[in-house]
Amino acid sequence: MGRPALLLLLLAALVPGNSVALRPALRILGSLHLPSRTSRPAVVQNYSVLYFQQKVDHFGFYNPKTFKQRYLISDKHWKKEGGSILFYTGNEGDIVWFCNNTGFMWDVAEELKAMLVFAEHRYYGESLPFGAHSFKDSRHLNFLTSEQALADFAELIKHLKRTIPGAGDQPIIAVGGSYGGMLAAWFRMKYPHMVVGALAASAPIWQFEGLVPCDVFMKIVTTDFRKSGPSCAESIQRSWDAINRFSTTGTGLRWLTQALHLCSPLTLDDIPHLKEWISETWVNLAMMDYPYKSNFMQPLPAWPIKVVCQYLKNPNVSDSLLLQDIFQALNVYYNYSGQAKCLNISETATSSLGILGWSYQACTEMVMPFCASGIDDMFEPFLWDLKQFSDECFNKWGVRPRPSWITTLYGGKNISSHSNIVFSNGDLDPWSGGGVTKDISATLVAITIADGAHHLDLRANNVYDPASVLRARSLEVKHMKQWIGDFYVSDARRQH
Amino acid sequence: MGRPALLLLLLAALVPGNSVALRPALRILGSLHLPSRTSRPAVVQNYSVLYFQQKVDHFGFYNPKTFKQRYLISDKHWKKEGGSILFYTGNEGDIVWFCNNTGFMWDVAEELKAMLVFAEHRYYGESLPFGAHSFKDSRHLNFLTSEQALADFAELIKHLKRTIPGAGDQPIIAVGGSYGGMLAAWFRMKYPHMVVGALAASAPIWQFEGLVPCDVFMKIVTTDFRKSGPSCAESIQRSWDAINRFSTTGTGLRWLTQALHLCSPLTLDDIPHLKEWISETWVNLAMMDYPYKSNFMQPLPAWPIKVVCQYLKNPNVSDSLLLQDIFQALNVYYNYSGQAKCLNISETATSSLGILGWSYQACTEMVMPFCASGIDDMFEPFLWDLKQFSDECFNKWGVRPRPSWITTLYGGKNISSHSNIVFSNGDLDPWSGGGVTKDISATLVAITIADGAHHLDLRANNVYDPASVLRARSLEVKHMKQWIGDFYVSDARRQH
Repeated sequence: MGRPALLLLLLAALVPGNSVALRPALRILGSLHLPSRTSRPAVVQNYSVLYFQQKVDHFGFYNPKTFKQRYLISDKHWKKEGGSILFYTGNEGDIVWFCNNTGFMWDVAEELKAMLVFAEHRYYGESLPFGAHSFKDSRHLNFLTSEQALADFAELIKHLKRTIPGAGDQPIIAVGGSYGGMLAAWFRMKYPHMVVGALAASAPIWQFEGLVPCDVFMKIVTTDFRKSGPSCAESIQRSWDAINRFSTTGTGLRWLTQALHLCSPLTLDDIPHLKEWISETWVNLAMMDYPYKSNFMQPLPAWPIKVVCQYLKNPNVSDSLLLQDIFQALNVYYNYSGQAKCLNISETATSSLGILGWSYQACTEMVMPFCASGIDDMFEPFLWDLKQFSDECFNKWGVRPRPSWITTLYGGKNISSHSNIVFSNGDLDPWSGGGVTKDISATLVAITIADGAHHLDLRANNVYDPASVLRARSLEVKHMKQWIGDFYVSDARRQH
Repeated sequence: MGRPALLLLLLAALVPGNSVALRPALRILGSLHLPSRTSRPAVVQNYSVLYFQQKVDHFGFYNPKTFKQRYLISDKHWKKEGGSILFYTGNEGDIVWFCNNTGFMWDVAEELKAMLVFAEHRYYGESLPFGAHSFKDSRHLNFLTSEQALADFAELIKHLKRTIPGAGDQPIIAVGGSYGGMLAAWFRMKYPHMVVGALAASAPIWQFEGLVPCDVFMKIVTTDFRKSGPSCAESIQRSWDAINRFSTTGTGLRWLTQALHLCSPLTLDDIPHLKEWISETWVNLAMMDYPYKSNFMQPLPAWPIKVVCQYLKNPNVSDSLLLQDIFQALNVYYNYSGQAKCLNISETATSSLGILGWSYQACTEMVMPFCASGIDDMFEPFLWDLKQFSDECFNKWGVRPRPSWITTLYGGKNISSHSNIVFSNGDLDPWSGGGVTKDISATLVAITIADGAHHLDLRANNVYDPASVLRARSLEVKHMKQWIGDFYVSDARRQH
């Protein structure tokens, strides 16, 4: 079973994350706190860090507790006359990191005369409702839901409108990527009086029970590898059995440890996790398959899958040669900087809480069914087993998922009565399988970005950007200007 | 201070209901359980009583408790081909009583080939999340919110669609009156994927902080009395001082007790409550000023305010004559049946929990500011004092109101992006002051019913109905047919 273990949405959850399954994702989120090479320091310095007192429970009156939500503001290009506010609906991580990785907002601020606001999601970064106890148990985690996060955004927006002179009468646009994009779309759906529209980039709002086939995600990953090099996906597909064959003896396990340059010796029990860790690497490469050097999750070369696939041209070699190739491929992802002495499949990153939060969310509301057939994709087959998933969640968090709740709450595919949402998706991005990739109405618009990975459009302009993403960004700005214009027209009408 | 004490929405809350202030409203809700004279027994028998297991907390995963929500179904006129479902979003009381007092739904069922569903609101009637402990303290009451009630409706609808063959593909329309009308409108706003439209009858969705003047309600009550008899409002206006003058001596209090035929002797401390009780009577008469004999809250004659005003033609008489007239007027409301031996201003009705629930809701989300100037209205002046209100709430329930939350959540006046809601209001109804009485868009439509009291349009057809309410009902049906038709057109499009 080579399913990735726990992907955040930027690396979303396939399994609820028992301690073993958690490890790879923890390692990955650990890097979220590294400074990003692609961030633009001149811009990055240019925001204020502020805090807003939020109720821990917006939906009840028994608990009077509050906590401080962090948010960032930049008003460098903001104009009180005819301006706007772009409001980033923060997702499962440190808001500074999202701020630094959403260059699009910085790039369009001047054109839209926009104030930029980045609101941190509760239970992530510094916005911890119960401080160090926030992840202690299901009682403390009870207020980690998308509904509470949207209510935080609504209260924060009211606060900004009330306290920033000139902001009260301005159109606000929600912007988000990945889970943040889902929140941006849902915020426009549930609080249309707060925002005139939403840009939901790479937002898999349909990656839920019964809405898309559970294998769509892994198929897209596979397609990316198929396109990026001859026999590349085939090599990976064959690698699972090769690993299995080496796993049967002590000699084989020792050889594997050495061939993959692992930091710790493998035991037979580690093998499922090893395959999860490798699978997750391929998934992450698909998400981060950007056309230029980047450092979103890991330092990576331009078009990293192409680089990886240069090592995976020969599926029909011996098991040992094949796995030596796999190591070279993994090494592109884990050691592009050349600093790593060995690859660590069990590294943990306790300094980051983000992964804990997402693991809980995946076990409650954000129940995303994944599977692989091993036929239409390059992964070892695995089924979506809700029962097992639910049991693992119960063991880990003492809660059970409600897999249909998100669809009950946000409408699933039946969202045509809403308006002013742009859904953008890159065709390389495995999350596009759960995204809105066709127009739903004249004001619920889908933009597909050829050769685009995970929310490429939200990243800063880059000389290596394909024409498709430039077109997408320009369309996005066109829609945003339309919403802003409509707001001012009806505002003028109200005043006359 | 002659402000009414605690009105449900069908008698909404002016003050949070300390034990004294609660009394009159308790008395009134006590009568909710009497069989209604205007109910139509042949129809009333014709429904099934069912129960659906609901989560106590839809918005968290810590509390695994469930409770049984009661709902009523009638499918006598339902057609699987081209039919529809009318879904009554139950408000602050026993659902059977609402079912029996919403004759409109029964009257239009055949024309719309409609199944009728009446869903009880949690914490009312039999739908008590913690049984007898439901009102014990703020911990048990924590799940009494409009959001939880809407989520109950959503889960129930999903259940009906899943379990009733043929219901899955049918358009559903939310229908409600008063607070139930607010819920119907909000349900369409928050769950537009669940219902194709909503009929929100006499729904004061704007009776909240900063949206309408706090004295609008009492002004409309006063206008009703002014219109119904010469000097009628003036007589009432003068009565407060007359009561005050009698209250200063023991002899005066004894005389008052006798003149008003009260069951218990008045003390000086009772006087504020006496005036609240009288004020509330005038308010209730305004709400129930129907053109025919009715028994909604109390047995009443046709056009009861006209009857009341026959006793209140002479404001410029002595205090004692004026208060004897006031007694005759009160007697119309409290003793139309002729059974009462005395009038009881401190009757309690512990058998009904509805009033407790609404008192809590008024202290948390449903914070409706009321006031009277005593100049533009016939009441003793009273101010809206949020601080005092909040303190009273804290003393009673251990919670403090969040007066702006409803507007944050549901949008206040900024709701134009929604669609398919009919807001109907009778111009006699004091709640129309907080209602939507002008079209907001082509699909957010206001219908005003001349000579209409509180949701007259939802009541059964009656030969004494004014032409205005016949027109209103026919317009409402026209809109409902439009929504149903649109649903089937786009449904057909989806299938081809």
